[in-house]
Amino acid sequence: MYHGGMTNRLRIALPSLSAVLLAAAPLVAASPPARPLSSADIVAQAPAGAWAAIPAEDLLVIDFDNGRRVVIALAPAFAPVHVANIRRLVRSGWFAGTTVNRVQDNYVTQWGDATEKKPLPEGIAASPPAEYARRLEGLGFRAMPFRDAYADKAGHAGGWPAASDGQLAWLPHCYGMVGVGRNIAPDTGTGAELYTVIGHGPRHLDRNIAVVGRVLSGMEALSALPRGTEALGFYKDGTPRPAIAAARLAADMPEAERPAFDLMRSDSASFADWLAARANRKDEFFIRPAGALDICNALPPVRDAQRP
Amino acid sequence: MYHGGMTNRLRIALPSLSAVLLAAAPLVAASPPARPLSSADIVAQAPAGAWAAIPAEDLLVIDFDNGRRVVIALAPAFAPVHVANIRRLVRSGWFAGTTVNRVQDNYVTQWGDATEKKPLPEGIAASPPAEYARRLEGLGFRAMPFRDAYADKAGHAGGWPAASDGQLAWLPHCYGMVGVGRNIAPDTGTGAELYTVIGHGPRHLDRNIAVVGRVLSGMEALSALPRGTEALGFYKDGTPRPAIAAARLAADMPEAERPAFDLMRSDSASFADWLAARANRKDEFFIRPAGALDICNALPPVRDAQRP
Repeated sequence: MYHGGMTNRLRIALPSLSAVLLAAAPLVAASPPARPLSSADIVAQAPAGAWAAIPAEDLLVIDFDNGRRVVIALAPAFAPVHVANIRRLVRSGWFAGTTVNRVQDNYVTQWGDATEKKPLPEGIAASPPAEYARRLEGLGFRAMPFRDAYADKAGHAGGWPAASDGQLAWLPHCYGMVGVGRNIAPDTGTGAELYTVIGHGPRHLDRNIAVVGRVLSGMEALSALPRGTEALGFYKDGTPRPAIAAARLAADMPEAERPAFDLMRSDSASFADWLAARANRKDEFFIRPAGALDICNALPPVRDAQRP
Repeated sequence: MYHGGMTNRLRIALPSLSAVLLAAAPLVAASPPARPLSSADIVAQAPAGAWAAIPAEDLLVIDFDNGRRVVIALAPAFAPVHVANIRRLVRSGWFAGTTVNRVQDNYVTQWGDATEKKPLPEGIAASPPAEYARRLEGLGFRAMPFRDAYADKAGHAGGWPAASDGQLAWLPHCYGMVGVGRNIAPDTGTGAELYTVIGHGPRHLDRNIAVVGRVLSGMEALSALPRGTEALGFYKDGTPRPAIAAARLAADMPEAERPAFDLMRSDSASFADWLAARANRKDEFFIRPAGALDICNALPPVRDAQRP
């Protein structure tokens, strides 16, 4: 996490390169590590059992007409009706041809049917319940031992970040989390317009909107777009914008073409080590470890299961 | 802050349009507002005394060769030696021809001399002190009545966001804040490489780096760039990148050409109202106000003083 220049010294010191692992923590039982493992080291060394494959049914693969691909993990445990809607929209081919419509700096990129007039396929729940939070019980929630600015507790459950008041749990609005656009309540949105956070976590939206997933890869296709010039970052009519060429569930793709991702298990020892290392960075750059960790800086590690 | 579509109803309900002000808070003494003022309403209605002009000596104006302009407010109260260095680099024309070198998604965009070989002008402090925090006393710090994930207190001072442990105060790493790239401590950086945060606030960097300013306008020129493909988001050699055509202090520009910005005073009644409205949004979209406010979602309002 160096902020300095590109000297050879720094190039060599980049985290998560195997050279660093060898230098920092030689795999010789007799010699203790020269310094604590970094969070990147912990990810690189995590055993197979620390990872859980994301079901192909929960992987939404969006291919844009500019050649970019975004892969999103869906969260049926938190928003089952909205996720069912999204799967149905995807499987009916509904998203094809819809576009990115809004890019508001330090806030969200939103995509779907800008006209709100494209007929929805049959079987869509037009008015899903307000899946803004769910019962904490049964989630396997593990609170982090750190203050959260917005919730009583923040932590993790099943590979997801979560916030809780002790009774309910919800997905927090962090960078890369995906939510369902809606109009004025009691409308909760159908899933036909989705957005992802591209700035500092707008956590005031928590429990006001259905959060349904997290971008796992290809975030740049949504975060590095030109910002919209209309109010709220909407693109002005006529502005060129990425269109969705195809949106599919990984489960519906030929096996050889399917993306596959693993999430680090929230209940693994590696994850506990990772959180501790994130909260107290001890590499040679940091002179004052934070002793704290915002949930939005603690989204569980993801790995591309096709490039192990 | 609607996430829904682009119906006329929503178009009309956008915040900070004068039409909304008229509808939401008619300026007729006898009729109380139909609903509490939104944070955007409060900004729009703030009296002249709620604003303070930023000194032209503290406005860094960077023009890129792609026609984009970024204006940064410098923070001499927090990092006087680094800011003096930056002013000297700017006034000697040193930044011209340097480039953006690193764009790491959800982290930082960094610019300056990628080679670290361009000779620095005379008079630059080669090893500035570690201006990572300063004495709280004398800052006029006002703590927000909300939890902060990283510091004992977070609040504002002189139009700046600040975090504090009761003795010291420092500028937090929030979206759009500007810091000085450095190598391994005790190096603190000269100011010849700067970065801004383009994702969720990496607050673990607080007190580890000199934070020297805040982007006031033109953030898109730094946040919407293609991400670098090398480790840590550095641009690969040969990748096209924006170059700085001119970096100037507003004070050195012809008066007619100078950008000018006002910051809302941290000690104004409008600012207190604004914070309260940000923490508890009560427009018709929000069904559950947060009752909380992260400092990175509470950067003081800025206005373009040339378009009042």
